[in-house]
Amino acid sequence: MKLLEDRIQRDGVVKAEGVLKVDGFLNHRIDIELLDAMGAEFKRLFADAPINKILTIEASGIGIACMAARHFDNAPVVFAKKAQSINLDGEMYRTRIQSFTHGKVFDVIVSKKFIGPDDHVLIIDDFLANGCALNGLLEIVEAAGATVEGIGIAVEKGFQPGGASLRERGYHLESLAIVDAMDPTTGQITFRQAGEPAPSHELTVETCEA
Amino acid sequence: MKLLEDRIQRDGVVKAEGVLKVDGFLNHRIDIELLDAMGAEFKRLFADAPINKILTIEASGIGIACMAARHFDNAPVVFAKKAQSINLDGEMYRTRIQSFTHGKVFDVIVSKKFIGPDDHVLIIDDFLANGCALNGLLEIVEAAGATVEGIGIAVEKGFQPGGASLRERGYHLESLAIVDAMDPTTGQITFRQAGEPAPSHELTVETCEA
Repeated sequence: MKLLEDRIQRDGVVKAEGVLKVDGFLNHRIDIELLDAMGAEFKRLFADAPINKILTIEASGIGIACMAARHFDNAPVVFAKKAQSINLDGEMYRTRIQSFTHGKVFDVIVSKKFIGPDDHVLIIDDFLANGCALNGLLEIVEAAGATVEGIGIAVEKGFQPGGASLRERGYHLESLAIVDAMDPTTGQITFRQAGEPAPSHELTVETCEA
Repeated sequence: MKLLEDRIQRDGVVKAEGVLKVDGFLNHRIDIELLDAMGAEFKRLFADAPINKILTIEASGIGIACMAARHFDNAPVVFAKKAQSINLDGEMYRTRIQSFTHGKVFDVIVSKKFIGPDDHVLIIDDFLANGCALNGLLEIVEAAGATVEGIGIAVEKGFQPGGASLRERGYHLESLAIVDAMDPTTGQITFRQAGEPAPSHELTVETCEA
């Protein structure tokens, strides 16, 4: 999606160790017009899927998911929570996720009340790197007996293995921008072009296990 | 706001110790149409204020703030973060907040890049109880030299002191639903009517200090 790629090129900051900061428009300060355009693009990409629920994970996914939901007939958004609070009792689906960004492991929970066999789910998140968060969400959708209609990502790091692995497993994954290379010294960011294969250099493989 | 009060009456669950669960439509599963109507109501209530930024706090505030922003000419949303991550370097405003719901103290940070003297800020959050989270956000806005144009809350607990204190300090505070009493045994919820004073019974006063 050219609008998002241009914005990443302009306002994204390449840091060491594979970190790309997009906090000026995506996950600290949020550009509402950009999110709305991203929502419209997700709808175009998943136009044929009978999506009736959007699942994301707190915190950065929530804004993207809510703005996208408007383009899917106001489908309800469910966000997975990263820790149990006293406000979240009852039965829930639970999984453990390792965060690439934070380098720690946390519990992720979704109440069983809010996802079930009738749901056709679009999973939305801001980043896809190793795919650990998405694997956790996929486990939850599958445990609930719901159908995964697709996975919509804002920024995929094409030099990490999450995207390739999910496509290989047959999921309909759409990333609005795929960063195949980035250079913390020059700040240069290389996006994958439509139809272009993943780069052939070896992927940085990291495990999702703690 | 009758739509929200009716929804709380129908789907809210009154728990012991002043906890009101609204996870079916506000802070776990999100009803997008409801949030859109709430955004329109915030715009009506703050129509005269020159708001150009919306500030909230992760996680439950984000969806409400993003959907409201559409009604404020797509004003950017900034959400305060609850812990420092490796993705958030640079200078930031920092304060400490005690959570009523979680019963613990956490750091709250906003990057100095994303709030400054030119900002006319509407602060939005899902709940107002003791006002600890809001006091933290107000400190950050004031430290940035920005102007607080108003505070928009989904659900205020009128039997806790946060709302009364903020109004006394002169802030333009609008809560879409004010719960003045709730009974965990019967599940009954009493909303404050327009123009009605706060209940005279003693408020449950708790401090924001750890």
